[in-house]
Amino acid sequence: MRASSPPIVAIVGAGFGGLRAAQTLSGAPVDVVVIDQNNYHTFQPLLYQVATAALPPTEIAQPVRAILRRHSNVTYRMASVTGVDLQRRRLLLSTGEQAYDYLILAAGSQTNYFGMPSLAEHSFGLKGMGDAILLRNHILQQFELAMQTSDPDECQRLLSFVIVGGGPTGVECAGALAELVDFVLVKDYPWLAETDVCIYLLEAMPALLPGLDPRLQQAAADMLDRRHVHVRCRASVTGYDGGAVTLKDGETLPANTLIWAAGVRAVDLMAALGVPQARGGRVPVAPTLQVPGHPEAFIVGDAAYLEDHGRPLPMVAPVALQQGQLAARNVLRLVAGQPLQPFVYHDPGTLATIGRNAAVAQLGRFKFRGFLAWVLWLGVHIVQLIGFRNRLVVLINWAWEYFFSERGARLIVNDDTFNRLARAPDSAERARAA
Amino acid sequence: MRASSPPIVAIVGAGFGGLRAAQTLSGAPVDVVVIDQNNYHTFQPLLYQVATAALPPTEIAQPVRAILRRHSNVTYRMASVTGVDLQRRRLLLSTGEQAYDYLILAAGSQTNYFGMPSLAEHSFGLKGMGDAILLRNHILQQFELAMQTSDPDECQRLLSFVIVGGGPTGVECAGALAELVDFVLVKDYPWLAETDVCIYLLEAMPALLPGLDPRLQQAAADMLDRRHVHVRCRASVTGYDGGAVTLKDGETLPANTLIWAAGVRAVDLMAALGVPQARGGRVPVAPTLQVPGHPEAFIVGDAAYLEDHGRPLPMVAPVALQQGQLAARNVLRLVAGQPLQPFVYHDPGTLATIGRNAAVAQLGRFKFRGFLAWVLWLGVHIVQLIGFRNRLVVLINWAWEYFFSERGARLIVNDDTFNRLARAPDSAERARAA
Repeated sequence: MRASSPPIVAIVGAGFGGLRAAQTLSGAPVDVVVIDQNNYHTFQPLLYQVATAALPPTEIAQPVRAILRRHSNVTYRMASVTGVDLQRRRLLLSTGEQAYDYLILAAGSQTNYFGMPSLAEHSFGLKGMGDAILLRNHILQQFELAMQTSDPDECQRLLSFVIVGGGPTGVECAGALAELVDFVLVKDYPWLAETDVCIYLLEAMPALLPGLDPRLQQAAADMLDRRHVHVRCRASVTGYDGGAVTLKDGETLPANTLIWAAGVRAVDLMAALGVPQARGGRVPVAPTLQVPGHPEAFIVGDAAYLEDHGRPLPMVAPVALQQGQLAARNVLRLVAGQPLQPFVYHDPGTLATIGRNAAVAQLGRFKFRGFLAWVLWLGVHIVQLIGFRNRLVVLINWAWEYFFSERGARLIVNDDTFNRLARAPDSAERARAA
Repeated sequence: MRASSPPIVAIVGAGFGGLRAAQTLSGAPVDVVVIDQNNYHTFQPLLYQVATAALPPTEIAQPVRAILRRHSNVTYRMASVTGVDLQRRRLLLSTGEQAYDYLILAAGSQTNYFGMPSLAEHSFGLKGMGDAILLRNHILQQFELAMQTSDPDECQRLLSFVIVGGGPTGVECAGALAELVDFVLVKDYPWLAETDVCIYLLEAMPALLPGLDPRLQQAAADMLDRRHVHVRCRASVTGYDGGAVTLKDGETLPANTLIWAAGVRAVDLMAALGVPQARGGRVPVAPTLQVPGHPEAFIVGDAAYLEDHGRPLPMVAPVALQQGQLAARNVLRLVAGQPLQPFVYHDPGTLATIGRNAAVAQLGRFKFRGFLAWVLWLGVHIVQLIGFRNRLVVLINWAWEYFFSERGARLIVNDDTFNRLARAPDSAERARAA
């Protein structure tokens, strides 16, 4: 470690864990550099609202520089991380190298297709802004195409949407899609009133929202049922060719849209660390969040594997936030020569909204459903959004949609735009160089 | 014409001209079908605000179906028009055919590179939403890359922006870009305060804003000068390789960004009509806006060529709006067997804003500059935006940016997203099929 200048703390990822770590280190006697390939932080829990045209992308994304601007010892570097040299304490970036004295890896997770290539190829994930915009385009396009086809089979495939995964993401996505169809699109396409739009929510376990109180699980299923979502538990998907979903019991569901919300795994970067990996590619860490054998390197959030009362910690935002904070504090304890603290998870509970006036909430011993849970959900999400303007504009959008059953963001950014974006000679080249 | 059902009026394009025509035909004894490849109407005069991260895309775009929903005799079909069979009265679409009894072509214009392929390949246009998003990504990325390069020549190219075309689009774009750098980015990148960011505005004519009062032309140039924009008149661009702009006098300007706002031409579809074309691919029409030899076919807006007091009508929104209305009324006169009316242009004047508190306005005999012109510009644009929510949210955005020098929309949607959008197997395939 250099004697003259403060030690460098490199943070990989500007998600919940990385940003909380950076904010915790603000003003401390360290130089912090946050590295992310996107120049914005994504509020991932609301990605499904972008996918269902309820919110425009800008409202759930905030520029990293705007978030970190107040912290004078924190800088941001836009780059993708291609490798980690734990021995030499260097990050390999798309734009060069970054040396560090301490490292906090908060690189997050990616969609887990459990080794089924047909799903990886044809289905839609919901992990990043690109996923959400792509899915929004696709969903809206199905209705435009259905209007212009005379083939009833094709029409059925176009108007069938299969969501796989009965966790909060799948439940919220199914509810939002049903509401989009029943309240908004029916005004655009009057023929929808006499047409069956099929929305399936498939879950491999015996109930939705695993881990919640059985009464709340049932309440969520009932609310989805009232929105005409076909909920099927104990249903495992084994393949998808873009036109039909194959289930484990041999049944097939014709559908041009499959939304895969059935699981995530640690990002591929974790495999490049050269340390053992647990299930889902997560890296087992010490209770202090340190990488075994590398006390200066910490892993937080989805990419870290740690058990709590004998069960792996869930891959959710609260864990990432709390671990980001602890890792940052433990770095400062290392700098100060103090003993480190172990991670203790404080579970804030689970919230899932099915649509207007309908949600379930389990906060410790307290359980809510219906309107009260929905108001709670609104409040929690508005408060957690970063940036006051975002909160204001999201509130206006939600209020507007609630009272007028309208969604402003239902734009299909067309194929031509995609192609031009992709082939833009210097933009693409420089992005790769970046 | 069929006796039983009302005649079909096909309108190609959901821009200013096409939508005004459709709204004029609302409730009339005709069946109207509007065809556009995008499911949204773009408020083109504010595209440069998307490109400079002042407004998110959603705020200047409105779903066509939401606009047309109230008009029960108007339907929308999402398709691109590949040809027009004027003899058989049929439109050839990407999704099939569309028969018509009357046709209103409001297909608009595209960027005109005047036959210079190097410009078409390397420069950025500002005609569609795709252009604007691509340009926003590119501009913001230059600053991220400049921060990470150690080569001073590369840094100069990254931080040099050349805007070609001194009309309202070029002037407003240059002003907005200068404001983005001076008020917003300097907070993100403190080193910008001691770094030269070069913004050039090149115009081939002797003055900016051709056609305006010379005092307003000078006022606009002075306002840009105060924002440190290098305005150069009598400067013609002859080539661009992505790294250096070549001028007619042999000079070269190193720059990784060239924004081409120097001209537009009628869309290629006009060449497929099989009728004579005037300069810029525009199709000469009768004063009634009818295509010579095809009294049931009308052309309005940028794609139509018509003279006013011996000079071609400009390719601007007010002409499109007024012609859209006249064409619709002339269709109804044809249906009713009444004589048609010729087009008479009512010029509402010219407005151009350079940035906060700075604009020029020429409305008939009245000329304004500075703060008053800027307030006028704000008012006119807010009123013209379609959709009350858009007006409200745009006002909030602008007020926020005015008081806090902040821009929320500065997200770089990265290369990886582009690529996935482009190669998404079924989305792209179905969009092509659409």
